[in-house]
Amino acid sequence: MIDIAIIGFGVVGQGVAEALIEKKELIERRIGRFRVVAIADSKSSVVGEFDLLKAIEYKREKGKLWSDKKAMEIIEEIEFDVVFEATPTNVRDGEPGLSYIKRCIEKGANVITSNKGPLVVAFKELQKLADKNGVKLMYEATVGGAMPVVKLVKKNLAGNEIKSIKGILNGTCNYILSRMEKEKMPYPQILSEAQELGIAEADPTYDVEGIDAGAKLVIIANGLMGMNVKFEDVEINGITTVTPEAFEVASQKGYTIRLIAEARRDKLRVSPRLISLNHPLAIDGTLNALQIETDMAGSIFVIGKGAGKRETASAMISDLIDIYEN
Amino acid sequence: MIDIAIIGFGVVGQGVAEALIEKKELIERRIGRFRVVAIADSKSSVVGEFDLLKAIEYKREKGKLWSDKKAMEIIEEIEFDVVFEATPTNVRDGEPGLSYIKRCIEKGANVITSNKGPLVVAFKELQKLADKNGVKLMYEATVGGAMPVVKLVKKNLAGNEIKSIKGILNGTCNYILSRMEKEKMPYPQILSEAQELGIAEADPTYDVEGIDAGAKLVIIANGLMGMNVKFEDVEINGITTVTPEAFEVASQKGYTIRLIAEARRDKLRVSPRLISLNHPLAIDGTLNALQIETDMAGSIFVIGKGAGKRETASAMISDLIDIYEN
Repeated sequence: MIDIAIIGFGVVGQGVAEALIEKKELIERRIGRFRVVAIADSKSSVVGEFDLLKAIEYKREKGKLWSDKKAMEIIEEIEFDVVFEATPTNVRDGEPGLSYIKRCIEKGANVITSNKGPLVVAFKELQKLADKNGVKLMYEATVGGAMPVVKLVKKNLAGNEIKSIKGILNGTCNYILSRMEKEKMPYPQILSEAQELGIAEADPTYDVEGIDAGAKLVIIANGLMGMNVKFEDVEINGITTVTPEAFEVASQKGYTIRLIAEARRDKLRVSPRLISLNHPLAIDGTLNALQIETDMAGSIFVIGKGAGKRETASAMISDLIDIYEN
Repeated sequence: MIDIAIIGFGVVGQGVAEALIEKKELIERRIGRFRVVAIADSKSSVVGEFDLLKAIEYKREKGKLWSDKKAMEIIEEIEFDVVFEATPTNVRDGEPGLSYIKRCIEKGANVITSNKGPLVVAFKELQKLADKNGVKLMYEATVGGAMPVVKLVKKNLAGNEIKSIKGILNGTCNYILSRMEKEKMPYPQILSEAQELGIAEADPTYDVEGIDAGAKLVIIANGLMGMNVKFEDVEINGITTVTPEAFEVASQKGYTIRLIAEARRDKLRVSPRLISLNHPLAIDGTLNALQIETDMAGSIFVIGKGAGKRETASAMISDLIDIYEN
């Protein structure tokens, strides 16, 4: 029996819980029986025997769970084999997720996280700690949501040297840019539209200034290219200064403009760049896309949904299966 | 120490041998030490302690290896842990690869194959035999070369129901169609060009009639969608009747024409189809591309090189690492 804890019970944590209910049979066929023994967020929790669906409903209704014990108390008190860590991203110091993940690893639990913060701040440290404690640190959901990247590079491209990885890592920016291109309207108007649709946040800084894409790029460089870089090593320019006129000039030459994150051995950068209109990275809407340059397999492209409750859950469930199937 | 046999020593087998030499350090870092203990083709072989590079050079020069013992004799006589089976594809009866693979599995060896024939003819039987004997049957290289598909679906999309898989599975057809589109020239002329460039075979039937794409589709349906289908279940139309006029009409409406292989629960077919010009499957040249429809991760696209010695070796080496890394 695999004992699971869920730490962080917002959209992502609830999505994982829903997937564990919906996909129970399929998952158990591949990795054997499991149960959720604890759920905790920043102010409440539930442990022991409880109905997973009822916990989701209760949290949605009351904004908290039954017990007032908080996440760190639960991590200390309860035994579990694997944790879904789904607390909000904080790229400055990685907290509170960083402390949660460290403590879980030290207790001997495998970690599946959707939280970029701890990995941006302390990837090498966490990986070393996981290796030392003989547990897995899985993070498919941190880069590109359901777009396959982490296990794709580690499994399908095992044996390859990864020369560079570049592409579109922020769906909000890509939506705004592709709408600006199509509607020939300036950034502020399209941003408002995106905010109305819930595609951009009320405070869009994190996305439109390229911070989110830069954070993902740090994880890609450290996790998939064996580099040792910090967030400060990424040269970042957002999309706020892109104009409809720039799109017009670009399109006359057969190009469009996209926010491209690129990790190379000698440089990490996020910036609006010209992309040939028939290039696979010239995608529209909220999709994510990556071009992975290798020495044997050549150039590989992947395109997929970079966000969404169900899509993020898909990535995290695939991590769970990967840990326990072998 | 992992003992490796290579059965079939043409372009693919030699590519694997070259990759094992070039990537020795990287591979051994991930799976521990290995050595090649036997190489055999339809008429010759070498076993024991030998220099891998010298075997490649000797085969290239003489067209055979040192010993006159043939593949099946070597499989019977020599002990090995894993075999790279890289004999030519034969979709009618799967031979000789089918007998080789069966015998290797029965002897307890893991199998990594690039050979579509045995899987098209007897996928379920081989998978059952492998399960019974506690060995792995790996076939990343049979579908789309270096384009990630098999492990992508099994690992990254674990937990998902695969609703359909469709796309471009034959680089030769895609080259011919994209050239016809661009040059506005009829099929026979572009075929000749492709033959001169070595992109199409002297007898192009296998590619242009859709047989190759159909074979790959059968592997996809059986291996990745849990179906139980035969080659005869695929409705196949090739590209020989596509005209420049058809491209003209299509392009006026914003479409191009590509040979699309599609596996759905209710239907398997390979046929020239209209694809919107800005759709990710509207790729040019010899690339392969797939759209994978899932219930949780949504729509995932992958694009990559579908053929080539080094690209095929990349896929087979990734299978080797996958078997032994866990």
